[in-house]
Amino acid sequence: VSTTRNPDPAFIDRLRELAGPHGLLDAPEDVAPYLVDHRRLHHGRTPCVLRPDTTERVAAILAACHEARCAVVPVGGNTSYCGGPTPDASGTQVVLSLARLDRIRSVDAADFQLVAEAGCTLRQVQEVADSADRLFPLSLGSEGSCQIGGNLSTNAGGTAVLRYGMARDLVLGLEVVLPDGRVLDQLKGLRKDNTGYDLKHLFIGAEGTLGVITAVRCKLFPRPVTLETAFVAVRDPLAAVALLERLREVTGDAVSTFELVPRIALEMVLRHIERAADPLDRAYPWYALIEVSTSRDDPGLREVLMATLSEAIEREEVADAALAASGPQRDAFWRLRETIPEAQRHEGASIKHDVSVAPRRMPEFIREGTELALRLAPGARVVAYGHLGDGNVHFNLSQPPAGDREAFESLAPQIHRAMHDLVARYDGSFSAEHGIGQLKVGELERYEDPVALDVMRAIKHALDPHGIMNPGKVLRSNPG
Amino acid sequence: VSTTRNPDPAFIDRLRELAGPHGLLDAPEDVAPYLVDHRRLHHGRTPCVLRPDTTERVAAILAACHEARCAVVPVGGNTSYCGGPTPDASGTQVVLSLARLDRIRSVDAADFQLVAEAGCTLRQVQEVADSADRLFPLSLGSEGSCQIGGNLSTNAGGTAVLRYGMARDLVLGLEVVLPDGRVLDQLKGLRKDNTGYDLKHLFIGAEGTLGVITAVRCKLFPRPVTLETAFVAVRDPLAAVALLERLREVTGDAVSTFELVPRIALEMVLRHIERAADPLDRAYPWYALIEVSTSRDDPGLREVLMATLSEAIEREEVADAALAASGPQRDAFWRLRETIPEAQRHEGASIKHDVSVAPRRMPEFIREGTELALRLAPGARVVAYGHLGDGNVHFNLSQPPAGDREAFESLAPQIHRAMHDLVARYDGSFSAEHGIGQLKVGELERYEDPVALDVMRAIKHALDPHGIMNPGKVLRSNPG
Repeated sequence: VSTTRNPDPAFIDRLRELAGPHGLLDAPEDVAPYLVDHRRLHHGRTPCVLRPDTTERVAAILAACHEARCAVVPVGGNTSYCGGPTPDASGTQVVLSLARLDRIRSVDAADFQLVAEAGCTLRQVQEVADSADRLFPLSLGSEGSCQIGGNLSTNAGGTAVLRYGMARDLVLGLEVVLPDGRVLDQLKGLRKDNTGYDLKHLFIGAEGTLGVITAVRCKLFPRPVTLETAFVAVRDPLAAVALLERLREVTGDAVSTFELVPRIALEMVLRHIERAADPLDRAYPWYALIEVSTSRDDPGLREVLMATLSEAIEREEVADAALAASGPQRDAFWRLRETIPEAQRHEGASIKHDVSVAPRRMPEFIREGTELALRLAPGARVVAYGHLGDGNVHFNLSQPPAGDREAFESLAPQIHRAMHDLVARYDGSFSAEHGIGQLKVGELERYEDPVALDVMRAIKHALDPHGIMNPGKVLRSNPG
Repeated sequence: VSTTRNPDPAFIDRLRELAGPHGLLDAPEDVAPYLVDHRRLHHGRTPCVLRPDTTERVAAILAACHEARCAVVPVGGNTSYCGGPTPDASGTQVVLSLARLDRIRSVDAADFQLVAEAGCTLRQVQEVADSADRLFPLSLGSEGSCQIGGNLSTNAGGTAVLRYGMARDLVLGLEVVLPDGRVLDQLKGLRKDNTGYDLKHLFIGAEGTLGVITAVRCKLFPRPVTLETAFVAVRDPLAAVALLERLREVTGDAVSTFELVPRIALEMVLRHIERAADPLDRAYPWYALIEVSTSRDDPGLREVLMATLSEAIEREEVADAALAASGPQRDAFWRLRETIPEAQRHEGASIKHDVSVAPRRMPEFIREGTELALRLAPGARVVAYGHLGDGNVHFNLSQPPAGDREAFESLAPQIHRAMHDLVARYDGSFSAEHGIGQLKVGELERYEDPVALDVMRAIKHALDPHGIMNPGKVLRSNPG
């Protein structure tokens, strides 16, 4: 139960002082960008946006808010798909931006790690790793603007999960400011350390409801030297799963990307994205964008990939395949995948689902989900694409081409319900990588095991007894 | 604060009923093995040992114990190095063995996963994976008797951490019975699922103090097809770290083992272990046991390994190297590493430390630690060996050859203190893979950040308000 209060002007002055020079924004034009989420689904109000530039200032701010029972909404790059960093409409929640905590504290190439503050953009972290001849493999569409603290708070996924894991798997340690302002320093970042409960994983993916991540010790990897990228026409999703399984074996688990793309998604991209070109001679119903990579100088890898694709052609699991012959061609293949969301926006309204099921069951799920969606929204176009290798597809519907936008959008609640019920029957997840934020709090209550929900609430209460941290996100502030 | 009570005979009868046929042992000879730990450091008493054969029975037992405030000590294969599964001397704590939950519930080779109940031995899990043409990479000395539930409860390490991670990294999902008897079913095992807090990582490594793990969904990997094993004389630990860094890069991160072995350890093995033979022509001060592996049929990997070793010989980082030419030779190399603990037992008393620091700082730590140890125990023999690739060495002292056993053992407290203080100065861990159990509760209190300890206590209290689960392990029952 949240017991937060409305902050009075004297308290805002106190926060201004604690946030330091240039640390508090309250002019309407400065505050405006923080009042709406990335997808423009959620709108809120706030008395101010705090922009401290050190962990100590974050700690002082949280200690004051804890004492005053003032609600705090942390924000990174504001790229959440679920309204995670948008305050509610009450105007009582202060926003805490981590953007000015943007230093790289250390880089250690020999030990394959670096320490970044929460406000570093993901791209900044990638580039620092790269200049140390290392790879930080987390990679997302929004990497130019999302911040590493937000990536960890939401346990971001992306296109390299198959090989390197989710954001949580890429972290050796965290620095977290607790809801009462104490600093939990878990930055040591040992690869082995069995001394008590693992606290780091509790804060990763908690979306700022248990504290504020202020710094991250990231795991680095040897940088890929050999990189082979293929755009492959697969017979169907079932054939894609079989191909992935075989590729993992024969390449020595070097598959770093395996993305499913249906023809309809490729057509949308070809229609709306400049310079997009069909990579194969004719149209096929399904494609996979496949990348295998290794830090070894390894001409044999291309041969293994080609031999496996040839075999798959003989088995009629693959119809045709193009291997990138150059960096620019590789970029062109990737662009076909990465511009799907943008292309889909040009096709009118869409109703989206971020679904995961066991990879093996994905083909059946897509088939059954498509039938279900078309029964509820005749004429809609199903665009099911994404991270097949992790069992995660973005199961999105675009409105019927000639249909009415509002009429289609009004179907969203019942389609979400039906799709998420289907996901539950497949023992899947209704939010594979996008999290809960404020958008999916009701879905979590509906689909999560009540025992698990109880444990989450017990932990929330234990760490944030006044409920000041990002209230109403992940868990409802006043359950029942 | 633990509020547990002494169970009366009527309650024991109730437990007998809940545990099912053959589910309760109370004859002294049956109970005896559970009253002492693997290293024979800890001795306890118990009214009975419960051996339920289903999750439902475990749940019923915990519900009853929760209500009656009866303390429960879970035990797997009883191979803890820290007295984790040994009851205290009060005779009021019942022991809960998971040994009869020993079914493999499912194996799914296509999705690279299997579900095992907690009481399956690690070897059983490895063998089931192997028969599905998959690898379960967790590997430890005690794998024939330790159980997968215990491996997860203690977040076991072992010799493949460098490549595949700790036990926690090898798990997709858990089934846990909570302290109040409710079953938390987190077995779905999706590779991506961002729906609320990650509860699984809280129970992994909690050593049975937050609940009882009853089943585990394990991640599987393609089985290695190409495996190259080398026994290498390295100039010193610093040269070993440099060699590891280069090998990770040039092999495409195919290094699955990198174990440091000092000459003194090899000599002990040659003295005491049957059929052990020196793999190189003459003696060198330091060795590394190195394995690179891939599921690809890959003759090039051996060439890369040989070329890298040749280069290292030119740089004088490596003095000599032997590559295993056959399976039996590989087994012989491994035997030299794996029998070190056994060989060391033949050398009299030992004082052990399970230390991790950043790999890059390990050479300096070993040098400084050796000086320190020899100041405190002149004539002792420092045997620092183990998982250099993860920054984890077992820094063990053997008594002086002609010295008095008891006199040497009496130095243990002050040597532990000095070594662990040194570890703290290196930002290291005093328990890299062995956990806390009852042996290191005081060390945790001394070295852990008080903020982290507070958070651990808050979580313990939130999930186990009566303190019935494995009281006194990890955290003291009555702090202060």
